[in-house]
Amino acid sequence: MARVVVRNFAVSLDGFGAGPDQNLDNPIGAGGDRLHTWIFETRFGRQMIGGDGGSVGLDNDLLEQGDQGIGATIMGRNMFGPIRGDWPDEAWRGWWGDNPPYHHPVFVLTHHPRQPIEMQGGTTFYFVADGIQSALDQAVNAAQGGDVRIGGGISTIQQYLRAGLIDELGLAIVPILLGSGERLLESARIGSPNYELAGLASSDRVAHIRLQRV
Amino acid sequence: MARVVVRNFAVSLDGFGAGPDQNLDNPIGAGGDRLHTWIFETRFGRQMIGGDGGSVGLDNDLLEQGDQGIGATIMGRNMFGPIRGDWPDEAWRGWWGDNPPYHHPVFVLTHHPRQPIEMQGGTTFYFVADGIQSALDQAVNAAQGGDVRIGGGISTIQQYLRAGLIDELGLAIVPILLGSGERLLESARIGSPNYELAGLASSDRVAHIRLQRV
Repeated sequence: MARVVVRNFAVSLDGFGAGPDQNLDNPIGAGGDRLHTWIFETRFGRQMIGGDGGSVGLDNDLLEQGDQGIGATIMGRNMFGPIRGDWPDEAWRGWWGDNPPYHHPVFVLTHHPRQPIEMQGGTTFYFVADGIQSALDQAVNAAQGGDVRIGGGISTIQQYLRAGLIDELGLAIVPILLGSGERLLESARIGSPNYELAGLASSDRVAHIRLQRV
Repeated sequence: MARVVVRNFAVSLDGFGAGPDQNLDNPIGAGGDRLHTWIFETRFGRQMIGGDGGSVGLDNDLLEQGDQGIGATIMGRNMFGPIRGDWPDEAWRGWWGDNPPYHHPVFVLTHHPRQPIEMQGGTTFYFVADGIQSALDQAVNAAQGGDVRIGGGISTIQQYLRAGLIDELGLAIVPILLGSGERLLESARIGSPNYELAGLASSDRVAHIRLQRV
């Protein structure tokens, strides 16, 4: 059985997974880039953007492990790009250049259907307009026995949490205060899911908490 | 100069420092006792309630260090007891028995003045009805060169945060979801205080994060 997992999803100490005022210049909202600084300080994070160097250790290990065994990814349209409403043309192909760091099928939740986009390196973006369960069914099928990762953003993770579909929730608590933005663990959005601790460890900059569904 | 510190203050993964529906039977609200389970599993926590045994290690070390150098504590009236409004008599003397685990002067914020209560073991409760700055001034004076600890609860810590008076904020992130209750790091209550990371470490059950004012 494919598991449905969230891995290394960064939230601030005050609970925000994105800052306020998301736009093309600030895809994670004002100050939201500070949630991801730790990633690009690791070897894994630098390789992801075509760089080299970077730290090894716990943060790097967990980022590497976060990719292991994943056969498909699901993301919200706002994570795929800044365009809202109908697609004006086929030009936007994601934030990640010609060779995105997924290397497997990626299912994008949207209300606006679009033809799949085959990228370099094994990533194909599929657009799903008939809901989160359909996206999950398609992702499980495409994963061919691998697990399905819910990549984000906040609203997408919340919808799957609320539906009781996430088996493992891995968060990276970044000890900064954003003050406002999108809060992940908001009971009005996620209901009352029942999780227990499956793993806890910290580097000198991030606390990694992994919950599993009871 | 006395420093003003919060130490080992427990909050849930979803940010709550107390559950909903606080009352005499549930002084930390429904489910709120789960925030403190880890404390009573340590040697320090057991000694605090007159027991023995308990774990040593990071959680125990940080609890012991949390008490070091503290010359006075400030707490809100709701942390001192469940009585609201005027004091009906002098009977309520706190939750902690005849020998409270403070062993120094404790300043209780209240709108209802009352004579000091001298307990066994060095703890004296003073009741301060003229505001948080007055309580801090009295506590700094009473601490005789020691630091002043803001003990809680949520509202009291928030008032001192908002006033920019807390030098060090030490939180214990307990990886449970309470769903509702009193949220500590709520910008509407604390403003936009400017802190940086001063320490991060985790046991297998609690992530300890220490911030200091920039």
